Amino acid sequence: MITTLPCVLVAHDPPPDARAAFRQELGSGCELLFRSDLAPAEWDAARARARVLIAQNPRIEIAAEDVAAMTSLGFVQLLTAGVDHVPLHLFPRDLPIASNAGAFAEPMAEFVLAMTLAAAKRLPVEHREMREGRFNQFVANRTLDGAVCAILGFGGVGRAAARLFRALGAEIHAINRGGETAEEVAFVGTLAALEDVLRRADIVVVSLSLTATTAGLIGAGELGWMKDDAILVNVARGEIVDQDALYRHLVENERFFACLESWWIEPVRHGRFSIAHPFLDLPNVIAAPHNSASVPGAQLEAARRGARNARRWLDGKAPSNLLGADERGA
Amino acid sequence: MITTLPCVLVAHDPPPDARAAFRQELGSGCELLFRSDLAPAEWDAARARARVLIAQNPRIEIAAEDVAAMTSLGFVQLLTAGVDHVPLHLFPRDLPIASNAGAFAEPMAEFVLAMTLAAAKRLPVEHREMREGRFNQFVANRTLDGAVCAILGFGGVGRAAARLFRALGAEIHAINRGGETAEEVAFVGTLAALEDVLRRADIVVVSLSLTATTAGLIGAGELGWMKDDAILVNVARGEIVDQDALYRHLVENERFFACLESWWIEPVRHGRFSIAHPFLDLPNVIAAPHNSASVPGAQLEAARRGARNARRWLDGKAPSNLLGADERGA
Repeated sequence: MITTLPCVLVAHDPPPDARAAFRQELGSGCELLFRSDLAPAEWDAARARARVLIAQNPRIEIAAEDVAAMTSLGFVQLLTAGVDHVPLHLFPRDLPIASNAGAFAEPMAEFVLAMTLAAAKRLPVEHREMREGRFNQFVANRTLDGAVCAILGFGGVGRAAARLFRALGAEIHAINRGGETAEEVAFVGTLAALEDVLRRADIVVVSLSLTATTAGLIGAGELGWMKDDAILVNVARGEIVDQDALYRHLVENERFFACLESWWIEPVRHGRFSIAHPFLDLPNVIAAPHNSASVPGAQLEAARRGARNARRWLDGKAPSNLLGADERGA
Repeated sequence: MITTLPCVLVAHDPPPDARAAFRQELGSGCELLFRSDLAPAEWDAARARARVLIAQNPRIEIAAEDVAAMTSLGFVQLLTAGVDHVPLHLFPRDLPIASNAGAFAEPMAEFVLAMTLAAAKRLPVEHREMREGRFNQFVANRTLDGAVCAILGFGGVGRAAARLFRALGAEIHAINRGGETAEEVAFVGTLAALEDVLRRADIVVVSLSLTATTAGLIGAGELGWMKDDAILVNVARGEIVDQDALYRHLVENERFFACLESWWIEPVRHGRFSIAHPFLDLPNVIAAPHNSASVPGAQLEAARRGARNARRWLDGKAPSNLLGADERGA
């Protein structure tokens, strides 16, 4: 008997707990196939009947010929929150594609707070000073209580970060596309308010999607608007900040701090890590290897959320996190 | 006319804003004198009529002969929260002495969170790894959401830290003298529960006063009870933790993290910083120069609180933070 259940193809090789989550969330009403379980001939055959494709990193998991062979494909579920590294041009323009936006919001927000506090408390600076024999007990560090925290991009990560910063007494000035939010903020506006927001911020968190609008958003001019002791945190995409301008700004403003978790050239997106300037040696930089989402259980939670969203599509309901024209490079 | 107003002697040289706070809080109903304003003969005369002594660091500000000359002294207000470095033996045993406990609770709690998060997110480790060319994007870091946070000493700092940790989703297991608290905790008990609490803790915050009971409280046995990847944070006094045992434990348990803000031999208490082992070079140590209270406005706030407490004594009311027999080495 030929199965008539819709075929869901998982392009990567998830660990056992994530496989179980896919099975549980998608239920028995579909044919669930993991590419890594299939012989080449089975994969070729499965492509033709795939209704849903689930992928972790399509850049390395899916070739153009695979997509061309997926003639029954109705929906693509990506398991990552950011999708700028996904070769979206491979897919038909009218094929619905969903990201996993918000799946890592809580651990990422906690990471934002960790880096911000490390900068505010000068942890790496004073550890180094102690190693060099200086015990700077009375050099002031800073408190987030009462600080103005600008959050550029008020999606899942931005809102989760805002909740943590508020718990420490900071005031939230948010920027998003609509200029409105149901969250408790001191200010919310669109990018039209960017200059005002940057000028009053003690902390600037970049948690925007990378789009044609946001690429290069923070350049020399925008850095110049910020306070000379501001803390800039980037957990979005390197390309949103002008790399050369940031390096120059850090060298010229030793009280300015940059907390960089996302980079311009990175392994997942580009196959390697590379920087144009020695950011890692600056005393006013805290660097992290794009690992804010790497907490125990995060990949499992991402699998669960992605599978649940694919199930919605299979059930004829509207899936969440559908990519808009701006994210698809329209 | 000889003044009949009670004389309040300030032993250190406060900055202008703190002087103004002393004047404001103590009011016009006393003779307020700053030692640094007095000629030697004036100081000698002032000593004899001082009713209240306010001091920042009596070890260097006050000599035995000064105290002997203070024959009218009725109350001593210390401006620091910890008092183990104060030469209390100089003062009569029945003279009331108050600390400034809790004056720095909020900034210190924020510092505790900063160090804990830096350890949980492996910030110094991964920055160093990146510098050495490794981009460990998928090495797991930890979240405080759901973590068990033990707080040893549930005074001002401990309670303020608990509020921050709770906001991040951690569960609080507190230890204090009474074994009771009005705070929202998952567990509260006395030191009798220490082993159980240490065994289940992901994070252990030491925020106890240094007394005969707490000196050496955390030794090799207690470290052995902790999880091998626990995070130990000491913002109290070095002496509460056995220095040799801690160093050995850190070397033998590379997943164990120590966040050390207070030390065994420190400038304010001992005139110099000195450690018996190279803690500063260990990858699983985050070191800070006892600076958790050094935020803008903290000294001013301490002056204000201390002056207000002295005012209470002058008004015949019971002052806060009177030192108990255990803190006075009874």
